[in-house]
Amino acid sequence: MKKSLGAKTLVYPTPVLVVGTYDKAGKPNVMTASWGGICCSQPPCVAVSLRKATYTYSNILERKAFTISIPSEEHVKQVDYFGLVSGRTMDKFAATKLTPVKSKLVDAPYVKEFPVVLECQLVHVFELGVHTQFVGEVLDAKVEESALGMGTSVDLKKIKPLIFVPDNQDYYGIGNFVGKVFSVGQGV
Amino acid sequence: MKKSLGAKTLVYPTPVLVVGTYDKAGKPNVMTASWGGICCSQPPCVAVSLRKATYTYSNILERKAFTISIPSEEHVKQVDYFGLVSGRTMDKFAATKLTPVKSKLVDAPYVKEFPVVLECQLVHVFELGVHTQFVGEVLDAKVEESALGMGTSVDLKKIKPLIFVPDNQDYYGIGNFVGKVFSVGQGV
Repeated sequence: MKKSLGAKTLVYPTPVLVVGTYDKAGKPNVMTASWGGICCSQPPCVAVSLRKATYTYSNILERKAFTISIPSEEHVKQVDYFGLVSGRTMDKFAATKLTPVKSKLVDAPYVKEFPVVLECQLVHVFELGVHTQFVGEVLDAKVEESALGMGTSVDLKKIKPLIFVPDNQDYYGIGNFVGKVFSVGQGV
Repeated sequence: MKKSLGAKTLVYPTPVLVVGTYDKAGKPNVMTASWGGICCSQPPCVAVSLRKATYTYSNILERKAFTISIPSEEHVKQVDYFGLVSGRTMDKFAATKLTPVKSKLVDAPYVKEFPVVLECQLVHVFELGVHTQFVGEVLDAKVEESALGMGTSVDLKKIKPLIFVPDNQDYYGIGNFVGKVFSVGQGV
């Protein structure tokens, strides 16, 4: 039997995305967001939804760019901190001793220590309600060499991305390989 | 050192969403999609991006509604099958022996056997490129009672959602609890 929980956004898994921007003065900032993901293959685009009150919101509109850095489990404390305080009053890079790297492709910084980075040019802004959805075209994806398996294939077990659990407010890690896409369903 | 992989959409984790719709004749259909997620808290909205060629694309435009059913690991074969064939030529529910349930809130069916279901009214259609993003307002979220922990809190370990790995084309499961949101970062 299913139980009705009302009008709620429950999606499992949701990602833990660290959005990098510069403010007007050029100070690098980061915030953690989980309302987002891939939204188009060509042009390659990702979406992230933010509240207007966030510092990152105005930074993206000002600079027309942002990065997404994807952290590993080992960064959970810093990532959680990025969601606890505002870049208006804090220098989050200094506080966490993480390193901002200026993107050569877009006007935004990314987190050097995180294993996956997307450099995004702002292409759409959609007002949805309390959240505004920013769609960025990915100009480049960068992955830590130690997280690559054979060739340029990403090894998820080396990235160890975090999962955010809506409602519960938990962070989880990723688990084990279950099957190959467009393969395990052949026998149905 | 980071290696540049070019303009690619790499987000970890991405979800495995099963989109339920009715066609013009009222036949229930499902397809698997991973470009999507939560996009707004109020009104509660989720987004899913689809190619125009899919049968689901025209069904959503016709019926102005869709559901998202979130499968468990145990359903990986059926879920993969949903992405392998088109509802134009196949009755995917009949082929997998899964059960379509007509939503009482929106004009779309969901999958009875999957543990989490969102019933969505279409509120926005955004053309992004090869993918069109459909934004649905969640009118109700339903969760299998056996997947609830204390009260109405969802137990991720009981849901066992699938993770899709872009590029690699792998399905993974979820892992272990890592920390509490707005808590583990307090000490930074």
